[in-house]
Amino acid sequence: MKPEFFPVNRALTIIGGKWRPQVYCALEKGPKRFSELERAIPEVNRKVLTDQLRELGSLGMIKRTEYSGKTLHVEYELTKKAYTLQPTMKQLCSWGKNAD
Amino acid sequence: MKPEFFPVNRALTIIGGKWRPQVYCALEKGPKRFSELERAIPEVNRKVLTDQLRELGSLGMIKRTEYSGKTLHVEYELTKKAYTLQPTMKQLCSWGKNAD
Repeated sequence: MKPEFFPVNRALTIIGGKWRPQVYCALEKGPKRFSELERAIPEVNRKVLTDQLRELGSLGMIKRTEYSGKTLHVEYELTKKAYTLQPTMKQLCSWGKNAD
Repeated sequence: MKPEFFPVNRALTIIGGKWRPQVYCALEKGPKRFSELERAIPEVNRKVLTDQLRELGSLGMIKRTEYSGKTLHVEYELTKKAYTLQPTMKQLCSWGKNAD
């Protein structure tokens, strides 16, 4: 099968890559603002983080909500679809820890 | 955390990529000869398949056994370490099928 059609590859196209696993795990415990995500993943460049959030949004993995108050603020959270991957991500995480 | 140290990324470095998921799944049901792997994944180029088998071997995921008889033949099989990832791969597969 062409790799782009193989289901495992399709999953990894969505959640794999350099920063997405960490973005996912940073959001697992609930919504975060951009600045909180930056603190959770200090190594990621601001533009790259912005791009990843947008891409994960367009893939249906992250929901972006604007809250208006004294100042506008934005929160990012995992979607239901994203949470269906949570057991798998936990397994990948624990397997990766013991993979030496 | 630098991505290369993040456990999920470490797992994906081993099992992700263009052809490795299909090589893994082709071997899940038991040992195969090179020619059987080629038939199972007809889209992969012979040199690329050889390289992937060697790399997965050096990562401890595939065992290569030579059988001598009338003619020498070689079989590839998943290692114990590789099989510990089987439930995760199944989940990635089913998630990827429904990921649209």
